[in-house]
Amino acid sequence: MSSYIFNKTLIIGVGLIGSSIARSIKNKKLSKKIIGYDNNKNVVQKCRSLKIVDLMVNKLEDIKDVDLVILCCPLGSYGKILSKIVPLIKAKCVITDVGSTKIHAIQEFNKFKNNNLIEFVPGHPIAGLEKSGPEHGFADLFNNRYCILTPKIDKTPGVKRISKMWKNLGMTVQIMSGERHDRVLAMTSHIPQLIAYSIVATANDLEKNMREEIIRYSAAGFRDFTRLAGSDPIMWRDIYLLNKNSVLDMLGRFTEDLSSLQKAIRNSDKKKLEKTFRSTRQIRKLIETKGQAGTFDPREKKKIK
Amino acid sequence: MSSYIFNKTLIIGVGLIGSSIARSIKNKKLSKKIIGYDNNKNVVQKCRSLKIVDLMVNKLEDIKDVDLVILCCPLGSYGKILSKIVPLIKAKCVITDVGSTKIHAIQEFNKFKNNNLIEFVPGHPIAGLEKSGPEHGFADLFNNRYCILTPKIDKTPGVKRISKMWKNLGMTVQIMSGERHDRVLAMTSHIPQLIAYSIVATANDLEKNMREEIIRYSAAGFRDFTRLAGSDPIMWRDIYLLNKNSVLDMLGRFTEDLSSLQKAIRNSDKKKLEKTFRSTRQIRKLIETKGQAGTFDPREKKKIK
Repeated sequence: MSSYIFNKTLIIGVGLIGSSIARSIKNKKLSKKIIGYDNNKNVVQKCRSLKIVDLMVNKLEDIKDVDLVILCCPLGSYGKILSKIVPLIKAKCVITDVGSTKIHAIQEFNKFKNNNLIEFVPGHPIAGLEKSGPEHGFADLFNNRYCILTPKIDKTPGVKRISKMWKNLGMTVQIMSGERHDRVLAMTSHIPQLIAYSIVATANDLEKNMREEIIRYSAAGFRDFTRLAGSDPIMWRDIYLLNKNSVLDMLGRFTEDLSSLQKAIRNSDKKKLEKTFRSTRQIRKLIETKGQAGTFDPREKKKIK
Repeated sequence: MSSYIFNKTLIIGVGLIGSSIARSIKNKKLSKKIIGYDNNKNVVQKCRSLKIVDLMVNKLEDIKDVDLVILCCPLGSYGKILSKIVPLIKAKCVITDVGSTKIHAIQEFNKFKNNNLIEFVPGHPIAGLEKSGPEHGFADLFNNRYCILTPKIDKTPGVKRISKMWKNLGMTVQIMSGERHDRVLAMTSHIPQLIAYSIVATANDLEKNMREEIIRYSAAGFRDFTRLAGSDPIMWRDIYLLNKNSVLDMLGRFTEDLSSLQKAIRNSDKKKLEKTFRSTRQIRKLIETKGQAGTFDPREKKKIK
């Protein structure tokens, strides 16, 4: 009995996410054939030696008859990639992506909406590690995590097939608007990441001997921020540029709250500090209850509650 | 062969840290007898039923002949506790503490410096969990972590005995000034913690349905902050009030850096964003090299690199 959802899948950008998708699609037998493309020669070489896909192509022009394309490349390159791929597609095909901002992806997809063969299904599997490169990918990366899809219409054939694919990879699929996705992710992901980058940069600017001590005593809390700050710089640069409005909105709220805590410290306002610190405990408990505490790396199962 | 460093140890405040010290001192046979005191009746009951110490006393007046006192109580209660204990001490005794700010502890200790029987050794074992209460303590909490001592004079008998105790519990002991400690910890601990509290409070203020989605998708980065924000509110309130100068200084530097990132996003300054994000990766690598990545909880050994 075949479980194939697709005949020929093209993964564009075979880094951490792309290679993990390739591995898990292969494991679950969701596509007869998997083709990979990456503009980085090192990545191409690694993919070939690790046998991550059936075929790594050197030029996008070499791909034929694909019925699924997954964009796993930086958000900033969507336009260029789509303008190359779309004219090559001569049969029914679904194009999806894994990008962290969705309004931008939808805008890029909309430029090609006149092509009747292609259905665009914008997606965002919420999974990842602070490492990059195909050598760090693994098939279980998506298991027990959420995947958000932001299609224009909910129950098209393409949305059904993409949902089925992510469900087969262990994800819970949720559908929402691109606008809502970008606001929610600004708060759960983009702002925490920006703060992590920022505080690590602050530490980096201190005089050298103090910086050494900060590294030595980082286990006191600072460490948690550096984990995030080890992530891919290009990916994050694009996220901030392409989700500017939601990021600046949420950042404004955050800096207001931080200023009011700063003022409470300056004025020795015991009550305000204690009240704030008590209220935040509840959110942590909710997250533990919902099973989203712990780590992204399923190989560290012990930490997942 | 006896390994006792102390005859009778009094632990004041038998929560997460105090109970972990009691457990590990007992395991390593560093004190003939361990006495506990806590002003919270629940804690007293738990300590008795878990047999964490040899004796829980109901009144500080009941303690006699102790030669080691470890303050594991909130920083704000040092003055009151010391004014009760110091007059009761009739033989040579070392008093130390585990507080997260040291200038304040030194000031409190200095009020009693005329008592020739007592030597004060301010200390800070850098270990902890985001949980509180004696039921969460465990003997291995201090293993492979740093302990900072901030005594006035380095090599007194008291400093040597307290160093020996922490080394026996698996810690690397470092000596520095109280001022330096408070600046370093402001950056490695107090500011990250404040930011974590602040961003969780921001999320808490959003409209209810968005808050639910933030909890659901918290694995994208937000989650790392909520772990810190689950910590003891009273302890942290006191830390900010008592390390106000260093905290406000480091917070000022952080908000400057965050504002400049905010501006770079607003102006779509690709180069500035990419440069900042690249530089922070190096600090993460240093932390991994120094073996301070991973988790505070040694029962999760897999995560410690």
